[in-house]
Amino acid sequence: MQTRAICLKSRPVGMPKEDDFEVISVDLPEPADGEIQVANVCMSVDPYMRGRMVDRKSYVAPFQIGEVLSGGSIGKVVKSNHTDFTEGDYVSSSHGWREAYTANTDGIEKLGSIVAEPSLYLGTIGMPGMTAYVGLLEVGALKDNETVFVSGAAGAVGSIVGQIAKLKGCRVLGSAGSAEKVAWLTDELGFDYAFNYNDGDILSQLREGAPDGLDVYFDNVGAEHLQSAIMHMRPFGRIPLCGAIAQYNDTEPRPGPNNLTMAIGLGLTLRGFIVNHFNHLAGQFRTDMEGWVTGGQIKPKETIYQGIEQAPNAFIGLFTGANMGKMIVNL
Amino acid sequence: MQTRAICLKSRPVGMPKEDDFEVISVDLPEPADGEIQVANVCMSVDPYMRGRMVDRKSYVAPFQIGEVLSGGSIGKVVKSNHTDFTEGDYVSSSHGWREAYTANTDGIEKLGSIVAEPSLYLGTIGMPGMTAYVGLLEVGALKDNETVFVSGAAGAVGSIVGQIAKLKGCRVLGSAGSAEKVAWLTDELGFDYAFNYNDGDILSQLREGAPDGLDVYFDNVGAEHLQSAIMHMRPFGRIPLCGAIAQYNDTEPRPGPNNLTMAIGLGLTLRGFIVNHFNHLAGQFRTDMEGWVTGGQIKPKETIYQGIEQAPNAFIGLFTGANMGKMIVNL
Repeated sequence: MQTRAICLKSRPVGMPKEDDFEVISVDLPEPADGEIQVANVCMSVDPYMRGRMVDRKSYVAPFQIGEVLSGGSIGKVVKSNHTDFTEGDYVSSSHGWREAYTANTDGIEKLGSIVAEPSLYLGTIGMPGMTAYVGLLEVGALKDNETVFVSGAAGAVGSIVGQIAKLKGCRVLGSAGSAEKVAWLTDELGFDYAFNYNDGDILSQLREGAPDGLDVYFDNVGAEHLQSAIMHMRPFGRIPLCGAIAQYNDTEPRPGPNNLTMAIGLGLTLRGFIVNHFNHLAGQFRTDMEGWVTGGQIKPKETIYQGIEQAPNAFIGLFTGANMGKMIVNL
Repeated sequence: MQTRAICLKSRPVGMPKEDDFEVISVDLPEPADGEIQVANVCMSVDPYMRGRMVDRKSYVAPFQIGEVLSGGSIGKVVKSNHTDFTEGDYVSSSHGWREAYTANTDGIEKLGSIVAEPSLYLGTIGMPGMTAYVGLLEVGALKDNETVFVSGAAGAVGSIVGQIAKLKGCRVLGSAGSAEKVAWLTDELGFDYAFNYNDGDILSQLREGAPDGLDVYFDNVGAEHLQSAIMHMRPFGRIPLCGAIAQYNDTEPRPGPNNLTMAIGLGLTLRGFIVNHFNHLAGQFRTDMEGWVTGGQIKPKETIYQGIEQAPNAFIGLFTGANMGKMIVNL
């Protein structure tokens, strides 16, 4: 049997192009002893994958040309030769981008009893949601009633950062790249202030939205966003460094913020992290987030593309602002 | 009565010049009720003062043109109209740069029983020593046996950072600007590796001195030092941001490190601080440091200029590498 998958045809230079990817047909063997066969229901495209398309040393190994790309997916067990897995079980793996796979169960997690649509376990109740949760509460050491700014606020991580901060009684500012997103942040998600970073300079907007400065800046964007936020931090402010999507397609190293020395007098902390650094909090996160989602306190949002052949487009869309909330490819 | 003092004649642009300063004569009134008169024994010049010569918002107010400069000094009480102070008491204040002053006792600290030369209370047992102590142990969260790199390692702060780290069983690297300083670091202070940052690129030297990377980088210098250290940090490394002396005379904002996004995957922490953020540790610091100095575990070093008229030269010397250890002006 065969199944369709996406492989990396060439390493993108600058903005990725559809032509950097290829839909291929790969073998789908019968499961051997201890293995299972899974039909993916949906798969995830995430900005961090852009870094893996570059051939360099990083916190995850680079993707290889001609190999099937990996990334988060949720699937249903269709055949099982493993005692712990039963046909019909929902499982989470990093085996997508493919429609189905046969594998041993290393790194495959049974979702168990789920309280929401399976795809949410790729987003709000999954890796991006947990990134928001640990980044804001642990790395950002958020305190009640502080002022929080999150960039990429309409994205999978940013939209959850803002909503958690609101739950904690904070004043929340967010930036996004379109008027529609800005309206969604304030009208639907309860952000106190949101702005389009294409409309005028960021620092002026921050000053308007938070005249007394920022306690936490959750950085998903880097570049001008980071420099502007540093300029507007209050003493002892914290800056979780989560991503730098404005820089991921740079072909040359980009200079950092020219005001980093302000961190000295203000006692600022800039701290980088990835969600895996906090795996010990996965259980606590899932309990909290499932409660917030079923209780209606956190509103998940997805942008859905249909069909594996759309995965490259969905991925490219992350960098052109095509998504509100989590970008999902349904299979 | 009159006393001599130094005032700021003009705001330096780029490297400060002698002509930016002026020796003036100022009144030295008799102490009123509650006041004391102090003859300064020695005064301090410190790199942070350069920032105060610029007219901008910062963590301390800018110096004003025509006003006597302030800064740390140690003096002896010569007349007292305050019950807590007696003739002959050593006091620490921020009233220098002047030979003597009459003032109420706000912000004046009696040194009490001292175990070393008074001038050390401006250096190793004073503000720079405490900066090293809190920056390394609190901000840097140093653990035994880690690998530590300190820039400006032959300076008042850096030389103490390195020696404390050695006391904690760490492998210690330092950079300085001359062969003489480098030799002092390794031969006298016990640094495991030191290099002249004028000899070849910094990253190569770091790789040679610490093939397995750095756990803590104590940044006194900024600029290329910071960027190179980020490149060579180990996972979960900490970077106390203490100073950026390479940038203090910049006339334009300087771009920051172009590899700050490496902090994300590595989980690095960059944290700015000034010593005043840790005033609650002053007692503990003095006890520890007096013990280390009298026990010979920490070796203080001073570069001494003689006479208040030499203060501008001493200050300028901070930026030309004229000092080994603490720069002191004896009065």
